[in-house]
Amino acid sequence: MIDKKGILFVLSGPSGVGKGTVRKALFEKATDLQYSISVTTRKPRVGEQDGVDYFFREKEEVEKMIKHGQLLEWAQYVNNYYGTPREYVEKTLQEGKDVFLEIEVQGALQVKENFSEGVFIFLFPPSLEELKNRIVTRGTETEELVKNRLLAAKEEIEMMEAYDYVVVNDEVDHAVEKIQAIVQSEHCKRERVAKEYKKVLESDEK
Amino acid sequence: MIDKKGILFVLSGPSGVGKGTVRKALFEKATDLQYSISVTTRKPRVGEQDGVDYFFREKEEVEKMIKHGQLLEWAQYVNNYYGTPREYVEKTLQEGKDVFLEIEVQGALQVKENFSEGVFIFLFPPSLEELKNRIVTRGTETEELVKNRLLAAKEEIEMMEAYDYVVVNDEVDHAVEKIQAIVQSEHCKRERVAKEYKKVLESDEK
Repeated sequence: MIDKKGILFVLSGPSGVGKGTVRKALFEKATDLQYSISVTTRKPRVGEQDGVDYFFREKEEVEKMIKHGQLLEWAQYVNNYYGTPREYVEKTLQEGKDVFLEIEVQGALQVKENFSEGVFIFLFPPSLEELKNRIVTRGTETEELVKNRLLAAKEEIEMMEAYDYVVVNDEVDHAVEKIQAIVQSEHCKRERVAKEYKKVLESDEK
Repeated sequence: MIDKKGILFVLSGPSGVGKGTVRKALFEKATDLQYSISVTTRKPRVGEQDGVDYFFREKEEVEKMIKHGQLLEWAQYVNNYYGTPREYVEKTLQEGKDVFLEIEVQGALQVKENFSEGVFIFLFPPSLEELKNRIVTRGTETEELVKNRLLAAKEEIEMMEAYDYVVVNDEVDHAVEKIQAIVQSEHCKRERVAKEYKKVLESDEK
């Protein structure tokens, strides 16, 4: 009945806040969200499939995509490019599916610049103390490194102003539940649906 | 930890859409919502308590409240005034509790004028056909009256533009679930919580 378009949801937050854990827990639940597939120049590992795990592309091709604004965000790690293809996201949304992207703060800000109609969710640490603990218990970091990462995290928290929602990650289950509520409520936003609902009424009149 | 203020949620929609049924189903679930208590000049019925079912007041007093802008909305039915006292709503919100108000479209628009920081939810019929059925099956209405009520409902649907969310009442349970999601997600809105979260971080630094 209602001809609905999907919504791009972007989950981000400071390093160490637990974005990956929350994303995994969210996708373990029954969900209609489609996880965004990245393009990369790194070689596929055993078992990885093109178009499922990543879009595996040559360096020249990805550089062309960057040049032509075909990536919503991109970054380079260890000599490889990683990015979010605009075409894939838009096609999926057009099919009526929501796209979900979990990404570092810098990447999220790039997406926001290129796709402001996305819904941006900031995952917030329950406290700085807790964030520090999480960074430390990841293991291998030296004290100096922990200090630097905590400083970086504080700077990333300043970026919160660019987001639509803030979800505190006190418990993974609570955070997941809130993200699910955000997804559901965004689909009820009047500016998204009013036009479609009016069409339903008009077609009733025939 | 987070010092949170409550939010006023206003549920409205055209006559016959099932606002009362949805509201009852919502309050049958575990909810932290506080149902808004109206002021009225009608006499209490057996078992009704002042400050629980209504605030029972004299005509002169309610007229004074209207004059001094102390009601977020008001209307007159059968020679009695009914209204929503601003002071009660604001006090409840200040205590950190959400207030929930279910009301006719005209009343909701009054509340919007007087309290624009509220969250306005429009309950939408699954179709005009269905709305007509619901008006008819209420029973006593003549064909002429049903026609008029349906026309009025269509005009009320035009008011949808003033609302933040549109929830279709295809199934009561679905509508309730969506309203619960809206309540939860509104508490995650960045503009509501960013300031409080920043305070948490600052207090951590001591």
